Formats: sequence, structure tokens, C-alpha cells
Amino acid sequence: MEKKLRVGVIGATGMVGQNYLRLLAGHPWFEVAYLAASPRSAGKKYADAVAGRWHMVDDIPDAFREMVVEDASIVSGAVGKCHLVFSAVEMDKQSIMALEEEYAAQGFAVVSNNSAHRHTEDVPVMVPEINYDHLAIIPEQQQRHGWSQGFIVVKPNCSIQSYMLPLYALLKAGYPVESMIVTTLQAVSGAGYPGPASIDMIDNIVPYIPSEEEKSEVEPRKILGRVHEGRILPDENIKISAHCNRVPVSDGHTACVSLKFDGKKPGMDEVIAIWRNFSGLPQELKLPSAPVPPIIYRDETDRPQPRRDRNAGNSMAVTVGRLRACNVFDYRFVGLHHNTVRGAAGGSILTAELLLSRGFIK
Amino acid sequence: MEKKLRVGVIGATGMVGQNYLRLLAGHPWFEVAYLAASPRSAGKKYADAVAGRWHMVDDIPDAFREMVVEDASIVSGAVGKCHLVFSAVEMDKQSIMALEEEYAAQGFAVVSNNSAHRHTEDVPVMVPEINYDHLAIIPEQQQRHGWSQGFIVVKPNCSIQSYMLPLYALLKAGYPVESMIVTTLQAVSGAGYPGPASIDMIDNIVPYIPSEEEKSEVEPRKILGRVHEGRILPDENIKISAHCNRVPVSDGHTACVSLKFDGKKPGMDEVIAIWRNFSGLPQELKLPSAPVPPIIYRDETDRPQPRRDRNAGNSMAVTVGRLRACNVFDYRFVGLHHNTVRGAAGGSILTAELLLSRGFIK
Amino acid sequence: MEKKLRVGVIGATGMVGQNYLRLLAGHPWFEVAYLAASPRSAGKKYADAVAGRWHMVDDIPDAFREMVVEDASIVSGAVGKCHLVFSAVEMDKQSIMALEEEYAAQGFAVVSNNSAHRHTEDVPVMVPEINYDHLAIIPEQQQRHGWSQGFIVVKPNCSIQSYMLPLYALLKAGYPVESMIVTTLQAVSGAGYPGPASIDMIDNIVPYIPSEEEKSEVEPRKILGRVHEGRILPDENIKISAHCNRVPVSDGHTACVSLKFDGKKPGMDEVIAIWRNFSGLPQELKLPSAPVPPIIYRDETDRPQPRRDRNAGNSMAVTVGRLRACNVFDYRFVGLHHNTVRGAAGGSILTAELLLSRGFIK
Amino acid sequence: MEKKLRVGVIGATGMVGQNYLRLLAGHPWFEVAYLAASPRSAGKKYADAVAGRWHMVDDIPDAFREMVVEDASIVSGAVGKCHLVFSAVEMDKQSIMALEEEYAAQGFAVVSNNSAHRHTEDVPVMVPEINYDHLAIIPEQQQRHGWSQGFIVVKPNCSIQSYMLPLYALLKAGYPVESMIVTTLQAVSGAGYPGPASIDMIDNIVPYIPSEEEKSEVEPRKILGRVHEGRILPDENIKISAHCNRVPVSDGHTACVSLKFDGKKPGMDEVIAIWRNFSGLPQELKLPSAPVPPIIYRDETDRPQPRRDRNAGNSMAVTVGRLRACNVFDYRFVGLHHNTVRGAAGGSILTAELLLSRGFIK
Repeated sequence: MEKKLRVGVIGATGMVGQNYLRLLAGHPWFEVAYLAASPRSAGKKYADAVAGRWHMVDDIPDAFREMVVEDASIVSGAVGKCHLVFSAVEMDKQSIMALEEEYAAQGFAVVSNNSAHRHTEDVPVMVPEINYDHLAIIPEQQQRHGWSQGFIVVKPNCSIQSYMLPLYALLKAGYPVESMIVTTLQAVSGAGYPGPASIDMIDNIVPYIPSEEEKSEVEPRKILGRVHEGRILPDENIKISAHCNRVPVSDGHTACVSLKFDGKKPGMDEVIAIWRNFSGLPQELKLPSAPVPPIIYRDETDRPQPRRDRNAGNSMAVTVGRLRACNVFDYRFVGLHHNTVRGAAGGSILTAELLLSRGFIK
Repeated sequence: MEKKLRVGVIGATGMVGQNYLRLLAGHPWFEVAYLAASPRSAGKKYADAVAGRWHMVDDIPDAFREMVVEDASIVSGAVGKCHLVFSAVEMDKQSIMALEEEYAAQGFAVVSNNSAHRHTEDVPVMVPEINYDHLAIIPEQQQRHGWSQGFIVVKPNCSIQSYMLPLYALLKAGYPVESMIVTTLQAVSGAGYPGPASIDMIDNIVPYIPSEEEKSEVEPRKILGRVHEGRILPDENIKISAHCNRVPVSDGHTACVSLKFDGKKPGMDEVIAIWRNFSGLPQELKLPSAPVPPIIYRDETDRPQPRRDRNAGNSMAVTVGRLRACNVFDYRFVGLHHNTVRGAAGGSILTAELLLSRGFIK
Repeated sequence: MEKKLRVGVIGATGMVGQNYLRLLAGHPWFEVAYLAASPRSAGKKYADAVAGRWHMVDDIPDAFREMVVEDASIVSGAVGKCHLVFSAVEMDKQSIMALEEEYAAQGFAVVSNNSAHRHTEDVPVMVPEINYDHLAIIPEQQQRHGWSQGFIVVKPNCSIQSYMLPLYALLKAGYPVESMIVTTLQAVSGAGYPGPASIDMIDNIVPYIPSEEEKSEVEPRKILGRVHEGRILPDENIKISAHCNRVPVSDGHTACVSLKFDGKKPGMDEVIAIWRNFSGLPQELKLPSAPVPPIIYRDETDRPQPRRDRNAGNSMAVTVGRLRACNVFDYRFVGLHHNTVRGAAGGSILTAELLLSRGFIK
Repeated sequence: MEKKLRVGVIGATGMVGQNYLRLLAGHPWFEVAYLAASPRSAGKKYADAVAGRWHMVDDIPDAFREMVVEDASIVSGAVGKCHLVFSAVEMDKQSIMALEEEYAAQGFAVVSNNSAHRHTEDVPVMVPEINYDHLAIIPEQQQRHGWSQGFIVVKPNCSIQSYMLPLYALLKAGYPVESMIVTTLQAVSGAGYPGPASIDMIDNIVPYIPSEEEKSEVEPRKILGRVHEGRILPDENIKISAHCNRVPVSDGHTACVSLKFDGKKPGMDEVIAIWRNFSGLPQELKLPSAPVPPIIYRDETDRPQPRRDRNAGNSMAVTVGRLRACNVFDYRFVGLHHNTVRGAAGGSILTAELLLSRGFIK
């Protein structure tokens, strides 16, 4: 990589945007050259625009403090400044869809954190280790819209990574899964800022997160689906049922998973071996944000735990433990990932690295 | 109830013993007349024996402060002082079994909080609203041991009440259940004192509680079983799989439940009606600790929650919410109960009330 | 009390209003006959107006569910319905002052939770055990405004009760205090709803609460002041310095206090005796919400604690402990009170009881 | 540094020992060549000795997993293996004193985390930026005992670093301080493992830590004292009063400080400048663990906070904020440091670096 690719962040002042910038500071392949947000922030230096509402634990990276924030809605302002934009805008769904399409129309690769386009049939919902082949739909997406270079890809909801990688590793090893019942214990950072009120999370859990269960059940099927005639057809074979809970944890979503194979099932040692040996295209391509290994299986009886495992693999690995037989299905296990890194900005950056590496960005 | 029944608490100085005393203070039917613990505490006034290790939120009830603690191992010391003892002793399993049997041999009704006797085939594991008919085994238990009046009954593990009452209500209404997958989010008080270290529960959850999953899967089958030729035969039809997690909550165990009926299934409205109309023998007998209603169904999308629902029905009710269809099984719901009251000392006191009311204590 | 006094709550749908209603349900002297809030809620049944934003642990009291919420800004709508209003409106300071004055002008006794009028020289800032004699200014307040019956009294900030009662008890016993340095550890409920974001309070404390230190230093001097020529002159002798911190506690403000007497100082035993024997006019008048005793001194080395002591005296007592010598000043101690009861709605209700008892409400 | 100095850790299996190892892994100057603990652990590989009780967030460093743990009480076993031992043994005070002296007698430099020797008059209590000149007493200590090379230095209690560095910076700038009242909000990790029970720290604070206030008041005076005729004479001029609280925070002690100068006082800007410009001998010597700068002053109104500031300067910096005038004394501020790094193992390692750099280790 001789010269870095210039990228932008739209919605740069919100919590997701801040996470992007935190992770993009010092990135070996990308250079942030364009920051945009709402008109309220436009024209301000980034440090001023987020004064009093910078919510990361670490300080604002020095590289961005003096950058002037642009108006994200004036798409022409980005032209010439960067080739790819990470979208972290916070608006209503229709406005997000329209804005992201406008950036794509202007030639930008758009990698979005938003759920708006997740159901658009020719927009891939990317977990780079799993469905890199969905990128093949990009030319069809461009053709439909008449876009020459730009396109849109999105990342899935942050609740699913803990079980998607372990599940996919099993599928890839030749063991189809019929059913999965998942209970998630999700960190408060998943709700953005301010998220849940502290009075609701002290000495409490909340067994409900709006729309989260639907996303946790539907998106995996698209990710596991296949590209066919300009559409991504979801995998209709696997049934997933999710209970999503909010727990008083800052970062790190945990998932308790019961699964039933469709037909033959691997032995317990084989499952662990499959996970430990799993590797995907991002690892093969040595993408900078690709964790090696992507799945960590821990032998201790009481792991994974958010406090101890969320930062594994630079917060990009999925940590799994407690594989055991299930009285009802075949196996049970616990998975964990860092929701704002692997499950959000970090996952998107890995996707962007994949796009660049595979020649999708010109 | 003209005169109160004199009762005792053995293991009175530990956390479970403290909970018994907290709940027995001012009880309308029972008068605590005997407190016993280890030799270390024997001879001391109760307030002195627990000085520096009284862990209840409320102060030591005045009625017990000056009572002298006896040596629990000198069973003869209890004779004449009370008719029933609540067992909260903390020793190895064999010692507990032996001591409880000795109390029974001396003529005491023993209502135990311990797991030691839960697998003894002629010892009922009581949830009074469910298996009051298991008390019919008491004469057989007495006969086997040659006990004239004494006997032993136990309460189940504190992890199961959240789903056992809702489950039983459905069974009783004529809807057999084939499978159930349960994920619990359990409060730290369930581990006794000191329980989990705070450093392990701040900003964390622990997806493992030793032996808890086995108990959560096996005990329900005994409770749902039937008395047959001097043994309680477990219900082998229902399959239960449990994931047990420790969460940073003081009191109140939450259970996320997916269930599949065996054959016909009720409609969603019918399930709610079954729960709301459910009532058991304790309610019919108007036992002092029996919650009315025993099951509370809440319509809000985000309930039950530990902080808001654990004290419902004097901490003896089970609160249920979020009934919804399941993609994999038939239904999903969330249940919650107060683990140290309904799930421990309060459940035992309700059992003792049932025993007295049904003439088992002479 | 043959017939209950009809009272109203303005700002009834907010968190403070909810606290008032929670505490007024079943009150022996007061009957809530008027609920008012913003136009947005006006015309709705109370249960509908707070649907999805009822934040109390206990459910909406049945007595209020069906009451229709009025528009608080149409003061005439309250006339004939009640004699006293508790003000919990949330608006800018000028609007609150104007609205409260309008209620007073219409003949209502206004007992306010807001800080708006705390600096008005003829408005008493009431801690009923301390400055009941400040009520003597009411006729002068009425005369200044030309009000025939109505008037305004307010309650102080919720940060100060933990040290105000112990301090006043010493002053009253004849021991003037020269200086006091206080560090508070304040519960999140003190910030209203939603208050601090959970992500900011998990594994964290925040050493700053806007304007809280100023209030904690200035208001005590007015409370300890005296009525003189139509004004309440603050006590200029005592110097107070406050550090105010937000801690991850739901309810209960703790204060670590160092104090220096002005001249002679009592012995340590005497201080404890003064606190334990302290009693005020509310106790003498046996007001329904008056805690007996108002100050609880605990001998344990590690008390008071929020979880264990906030509910003492029906959440209206102040609990004190750890009196010890100070290397710099004379003594140190720790005080604690329930911030949303003694420190807010409960304190106001006690004030209203005092007003009724002393004939200020006609 | 051509070759690393071989060091040992005695008490290597406890929580403090684990912290030492976590921080010594990959240290540029030190190589851990000797691990010792109680006879129970002796002979085991380190990973086996701490199995099930490794409490660090990060895993056991690979370099130590296979090292065999020695019996710490057999001092001769260390001879030839290392030149300096970090002492983290957990025994009664007399045994610790004796053991540390035995290591010194055998020629080892002993850098201790324990409080046992803090009151020994010729043992320096080191905060390297402050009292490096106390090392001058080492020859006198050696002479008194007849030790040829060995000696003992200790680190102070973990509660004081937040205010000691800011205080010392002011003293060094020529502004003597007369009085200081400090309230600490201390993390649970300061209590070792298991430390406070989670049931005591959920929704609670505990306003008491055994012996902590005495240490927080006495140790600073020794640190600020001077070497005179073979003794370290404490600074008797400064009076310190401490309130020590335990709060539900994992790592990071916060201190709310009020201070009064003795004579002239600097202006507020000058205080901030003094802190920001402060630098000590460790910084001058570029010791590997010396934070640059040692004191960070933050301008935000709500800093420092444990979650955001504990890791500043590689967890070795002290972060200060909220400097403001005090109504009673001269100034108030808030300080924060990482208690298990700067306040414990990290502080000791910095001391060891200083010892090596200044030629005290032969």
C-alpha cells in the first residue's frame, strides 16, 4: 500500500461516527480526508463540533481535532476529497436511504452502519469472513441505478456477530444447522448515546430492545444467502429465534446459543476444532483489521465474559466457550464479541479493507 | 390459628438463616422459638453471633436479638422447644443429610433449603402451588425410617420458579409441553454471602454457575412427577435445557423461555388467560405467604424487570411478560421471581404453612 | 382530621410529579383532587398521559389512573378543586416563577420542588424540623403581592439534607459551627429522568453536577437565617464548601462531612447524644410524614450505606455514622438521606403537613 | 541497557503478584527469572499454580506460564537467580517483615508492595517523582542490619497518589500547604481479590475501608519528610484528614481535595501551570515506566473520571481537574490515578527502575 486511500465519515459527530474516527486514527490503508455531519456542525472544527459530546474513553485523535466538518447533505462537497465514505448518519430511514444513494450516485463507495438499506435486495449485508462473495452483486446494483463507480454495502445489526461466525464455521465445515435459539445479553453502548438511563440499568436488566429480535432473526438468513439474478436470496433453511436483553455492561454482547443440526452432527471435539481452525478471506488477505484467529475458543468453564474477552483480537475476534450437549437440541455454547468494534465500526472498516483489496474501489 | 406454632431455624446465622428470620418476624402462624447454628455461635445472643455479618438490608428483627443460639448438632436441645425446623445449615452434603434425618428422627418436621435431600426418592421437592400432592409420600418416608412424627421436605433450586409456575399453569390447563429452552439471568444474592466478587460483576456478566444448569433441568421433572410406591417418579416427558448466567443484579432471577407444546397448543390470548387465572391450593387455603395472584402477567413490552417486579406479591409472585410466537418452538416469554424469597426462604415458609394447614404437623 | 384537604399536583406527569403521587396515595390528611401538566397531557387520563414514561418502581396508584390531567397553565381550572398545589413543573426558571405566582394569586398554597423561587427573599426554603419559624414571613409575602390567601414556599436542593439536620441539631444544642467541608456521593435519581446515561455510570463516577455545589453551599445559609423586615436574612457566619459527585447508586445521597466549631466544641459522646435526642416541631406535632427519630445514628463502622439506610424512617430519616475526630477540623462524619423522598417530594409533603397543622391553609 | 536485570516476584500467585507479572512482561530493563509463592504453589508451573484464580483481564503472559514456582520462604533458592525481588507476599505483618529482611540479608534489593515496613524509620516509602532523595538512607539501613548489598524500600498505600503528586508539585514550586481535607472514592480492586462482595457494591457505596484513612493521613508526611541521622523524619507541618469510601468502580481511585496554603498562595492559573509543567527525576532519567507528563490537568468541567482517565500515561499518570476556589480553604480539585498500576505494582516497578538507574543495585 504505497499511498493511503482517502476516506470520509458522514455522521462523524455522533457516537458511531466517533467510533469510526477512533478506529481510523493511524489506519495503515485509510486516511480520513472528509468529515461531514448535520448543518448544525458544518463549518466547525471537529473538536468544537463534538465539544461536550465526545463519548469515547480515549480522547479525540489529534489528527481530526482541527479538521473542518462539512455539511453531509451537500454531497458534491465530498467529490475529490475521498473515494469511500463510512455512513453513520442518524436520520429517519427514508432520508438515510436517499442520502446514501446520492453518495453512491456521485461515485463513492458507501459502507454503512445503518439498518436502512439492510433489506434492499441488491445491497450486501457484510460479515467479511462469511459472505465476501456477496460483493459480486455490486455491478448489478450499479447497473440498476446507473451508477458508474459508486455502490452501497452495509453491516448487519450488532447483536448477531457472536453467533454468526461460530455458526458459519460449522456450515462451512459441512454441517447444516436447522434451528437455533439464542438469548443475547447486550451492552448499553449498543443503544448509542445516551442510550438507556442509568436509573434503568442499576441493579436491573431489561428484557427487551426495540426491533432487535427481528433483526437478529432475519439478517443472518440474508448473510447466509446467495446472489441470484440481481438479488440476494436469503437462506430459508435455518430457523432462528432470539431473546434480546439489555444488561448493565458497557461494551460486549454475549449470546447463549442452542443449536440443532440438520442431519449429521459433528462430535464435540470436532466442533471446537472447526472453530479453532476457522479462517476466512480477510485472514487470507491479511487485511489490517482481520483478527487472527477470528474465533477464539476458551476452555475455562466460565468464559467468555464481556470484561475479559471483548478486547480479544483487537476487539475484532469472536470468543466462544462452554460448548456442551443440549437436552433439547444438539449443542449449547456461549459467544461474545465487542459490539461497537466487531459489531459496528470495526466490522465496517474490515469490509472497506476487503472492498479495497478486491478492487471494488477505483 | 389460636396459638402460634413454635418453629426453629437451624443454620440461623448464615445468609439463608437470616432470610428466614427476616421473613418469620411477625409471622401470623409461626413463632420462632429455637435458633441453632455451629458450635462457634452456640451460647451467644443472636445479635452477637451475627455481629459484622448480618447481610439483610433491614436490621435484625428485635424479637431475635436477645435469643440465645443453640448448637445445631445437639438435636436433643431442640426437643420441646419447637415442632418444625427450617434447615439452612451450611455443611457438606453428607453431614446435612445426616443432621436433617436426625431432626426428623427426633420428631421434627424439617423444611430444608438445602439441595442435599433433593434427590432422595421419598423426599418431596416442594413448590406448593404445583405439587402439594407429593406430601402424600410423607407417611411412607416416615415408615421407611421408622420415624413416628418427623419428616423431611425440601425446596427446589432458586433458578426455576420463574418458569415452573407458568409452565405448570399450562400443563394443568391441559397443554402438555414437550421441550423448553431456558436462559436465566440470575442475581448475585443467589450465591449466598459473599458470593461473586464485585470485581467480577462490575461491567460484566458470568455465563456459568456451578451445577446450576443440571439442577435447573432435573428438579422440574421431579416436581412435575408423581408419587408411586414410596417414590416420586419424575416426569420423563418434558425436556428442559438451561443456560444459567450470573448478572450484576442484587435480587431477582429472570428467565427467557422458549417452549414447544406436545400436541395441541393454546392461542396466545388463552395462554395469558391461563396464567392470569391460575390459582393453587395455597391460594385456596389462604395461606399467609401465598401470593394472590401467584402469576402476574404484564402487558408492557419491557417487563418483567428485576428492579420493578421482584417485590410483586410480597416477593412471592412470579411475574411474566413478553409472550410472543417463536420461530423455532411455539412460544417465548420472560419470567421473573425474587430468588431469596419465592426461590428460597419464602418458598419454604409457604411449604411449612401448607404442612400445618394440611395436618402434617402434630 | 375529619375531612381530607384537597390538594393538586402541577407537573404531575414528570418524574418528580410521579414521586408526589406515589407518596400521596393513601395519605391520611391529603386527597389528590387535581392533576395538571403540559397541554400535551391535558385531557388525557393520568395512566394514558404517563404510559411508557412512568418511572417509579411501584405501579401507578389505582386512585390516579383514571383522573383526567388538566392544563397546568390554565390556573383558573384549579379553582374550587383544591387548596394547595405541589409544584413539580419543568420549564425555564422565569416561567416557573410566573406560574407559581399565578397559582398563589388565585389563592393556592404553593409548595414547590423547583429551585426557581429559592432565592426570592420572602419565600421560605423549608426543612420543617429546622426553619418552621420562617413560615412567619408568609403574611409579608402575601402583602407584598396583594395575595389574600395564596403563598409560595419551596423545598431546598436534594443534596443538603444529609448534613443539614445533623448540623442544625448541633447549632440548636448551643454549638455554633464555623466551617464545613462536604463531599457528596449523589444518586442518579437526583438528576430526574433520564438523568445520566448508563454508559457514563457503569464502572465510573462523575465528579461534577451542574450548579449543585453552589446550591449546596448557599441554600443552607438561607435555611439557617432569620426573618427580618420582610426578608429572610441568610446566616453569614457559617462557611460551607461542597464537592458534589454522581455515583452509580439509584437512590440515596451520601455526604462525607468535616466540621469545625466556632468556639467551644461538644465531646464525641455528646454529639451522638444530641443527634439521637434531636426532635423538631414536625415530630412534636406528630405530622404524618415526620420520621421519629428524624436523625438515626448508627454505631457500625461502615454505615450509613445507600442500600441499607435510604429507607430508614419511611425514607424520611437522615442516617448518620462514623463520627470521629478530624486532623484538620474538629469532627468528621457521614450522613445519608433518600434524595427523592426526604430530599424532594417527601420533604415537600412534610412542609404541607406543617402548613396545614399551623393554620396557614384556609 | 545491554543486558536485562534479572528480577523475582515473591507472592507471585496472588492478585498483586499477578499485577506485577502483567506489567513486567516485556519490560525493557527487567527479566523475571524467579517466581515464588507459598509452599502450596511451590513446584508447580505458574499457569497451574494460578489456574482458576488468575484475575487479570488479560491472559497470563506466555513468558511465565511454564516457569516453576519456588517456595518463597526458602530464600536461598533465590540466590543467583535474580538481584531484585518485588514483594507481594500475603501474610501477617511480622512474617512479612521477617521474610523481606531475610531477602535483604541475602543480598537482594527488596521492593515491597506491603505495608509491613512502611513505619520502619529507615525504610523509604517511595513515590519516585517526590522523594527519590530518601534513597540516600539505604547505606544507613544496610549498616544498621549489617547487610552488604541488600536493602528494603516500599511503596505507599494506593489511596494517596491522586493527591500526593499535585500536592508535591505545589510544595516544590514554593507554596507550602498547611491543611488538606480529602475524600476518596476508591475502586474495588484496591481491596485485592475477592475484595468486596458484589451484593455490597451493587447500587451502593461503603463509606469505610479498614485502616485506610490512617494510612492516607500518615504516609504522606513520611514521604514529604527528610533523611536525618539514619531516620526519615516526617513532615509535621502538613495536616491531612481523609474520608475513604469504596465505590462500585473496578479500577481508579478518585480524590476530592480541599487545601489551604501556609502563607502565600498561587493564583489559579499558576497552580494549573505548576501541575502541567511538573516533572521529576524519573522523567529526567527517562525511566521506562515514568509517565510524561506525570500530572495531566484536564479543562473539562466533569473530569477526571475513572473510566476515562485511569489509563492515562500508561496508567501511571495522575489526572487532575476541577481546580476552583474553596469557600473554606483556598482551593479545591479532583485527582485520579490507577490504583493497581500507579498506586501499586506500577509504582514499585518505577521505583525499581530508579534504583537500578541510580546504581543501588549491584
